[in-house]
Amino acid sequence: MPIDFCPGYTGSPFKTLARNYPGADVYPSADFRTEWGPIFHRGRLNGTARVLVIGQDPAQSEAVVRRILVGNAGKRVQGFLHKVGIRKRYVIINTYIYSVFGQQAGNAHIGDAQIAAYRNLWIAGVLDKSPIEAVVAFGGLARKAWEAWLDSPAAVGRPALHFEALPHPTSPTAGGASDAQAAAATATMLAKYNAAIGRIRGVLTATDAIASPLYGNAFTDDDLPDIPMMDLPPGTPAWMSTEEEWAKRVGDTAAIKRRTIQIAVPPAVPL
Amino acid sequence: MPIDFCPGYTGSPFKTLARNYPGADVYPSADFRTEWGPIFHRGRLNGTARVLVIGQDPAQSEAVVRRILVGNAGKRVQGFLHKVGIRKRYVIINTYIYSVFGQQAGNAHIGDAQIAAYRNLWIAGVLDKSPIEAVVAFGGLARKAWEAWLDSPAAVGRPALHFEALPHPTSPTAGGASDAQAAAATATMLAKYNAAIGRIRGVLTATDAIASPLYGNAFTDDDLPDIPMMDLPPGTPAWMSTEEEWAKRVGDTAAIKRRTIQIAVPPAVPL
Repeated sequence: MPIDFCPGYTGSPFKTLARNYPGADVYPSADFRTEWGPIFHRGRLNGTARVLVIGQDPAQSEAVVRRILVGNAGKRVQGFLHKVGIRKRYVIINTYIYSVFGQQAGNAHIGDAQIAAYRNLWIAGVLDKSPIEAVVAFGGLARKAWEAWLDSPAAVGRPALHFEALPHPTSPTAGGASDAQAAAATATMLAKYNAAIGRIRGVLTATDAIASPLYGNAFTDDDLPDIPMMDLPPGTPAWMSTEEEWAKRVGDTAAIKRRTIQIAVPPAVPL
Repeated sequence: MPIDFCPGYTGSPFKTLARNYPGADVYPSADFRTEWGPIFHRGRLNGTARVLVIGQDPAQSEAVVRRILVGNAGKRVQGFLHKVGIRKRYVIINTYIYSVFGQQAGNAHIGDAQIAAYRNLWIAGVLDKSPIEAVVAFGGLARKAWEAWLDSPAAVGRPALHFEALPHPTSPTAGGASDAQAAAATATMLAKYNAAIGRIRGVLTATDAIASPLYGNAFTDDDLPDIPMMDLPPGTPAWMSTEEEWAKRVGDTAAIKRRTIQIAVPPAVPL
């Protein structure tokens, strides 16, 4: 059976953007893991996308597959899209093309003009190419990224798009939350997600699948679909699309940990 | 400054081949690391290649960048091509698309019909598309792979191509050779390489660079050029093209080691 793959950056302007990305002169290495390279997107760049998702920054799994929002957060976003009725017609970009080295570093650079300028070229490219009808920002920096786009000259004169600013899907467990705190925060977040999904369903004039049922008070397996192989580069092992915890930063010191990513085929995968 | 990247598998027949590759039913998982996915090629699939290189199988670095012959062996092959006068116009494929789990496993499957059939589709695609004038096999299995192509129906009626069967570039240090043994084997190998380079230079009707000087008795830094960024996927960190030892299999047991690849930014790379 054929296995789909992401064709990458073949058309304008994405081919040019993938050859001309900002480096450590724009993204300071003290605050971004520029050594792992930029990671640009996930999803359809071929003109079929209806929803634009904005995330924050790539983590270690993303540095391996070189597409954003795979792993735990990625599956949560994928489930969100399923509930909207979208299985293929989305584009996901991040606020930052490099991994932030600490959340405060991410916060510090949200106003940087050159970072925003490059990101806005991606947004313009997506909007020029695809009939986007809704934009979803996951996390506070993603919301600011979209607002920076709206304030930019390139956004002038374009039709207003439905916009949702939502909590980042892994935010309930961030910052050392207790299990009870995380459960409560998850329930609150999923209620917000459900309300947003209802509004987005009302806006989209075309979907590509029957919408999945809304969330309950906690994530279930049904809420966490696999990352489609069509989103990943050719030859990517299937477990990178189905499993969540297969890459981690390892090392006894912060310096070694920054330099080291360990990939492990999960125990659930038989060899 | 723009950073080139490999466009991947966009045209016929490579797009189809990258979607329809043999799995564990053809490559038994006892003998091949199928869990890391297939890795197909490196170099030009756009019709400009003059030299076809055949290697053996992908190692751990290759599983990360998803192109073959990077790292130590890759830089040695790249240097060989420089000495021929070729910087861009080559295609590299492997005998096996999956990593062999032990050399005896590689030896055991060199006659497998289904493995050869898929490999021959790649060879046919390269020869149909590109004006290949010389074929270089590195290692005994690669030589057999080319011979299996010549014996196949798809090879019938095609013009004969200049062919060189050479030792694999890392073979001098294989099998627990002493330093003295490795040095002697390297000198012998490089003499063979020099002779082959002379013959290939005589065959090629077009090159794309001034040929680099021939080898001495040992590899020097000049013999080990970087892997071109144009051969690697978009966003690949530059050190993956310039450094040799950045991925290793780790683990206290053979089972864990098979499941685990650790990537480390080399100490020579400043952060």
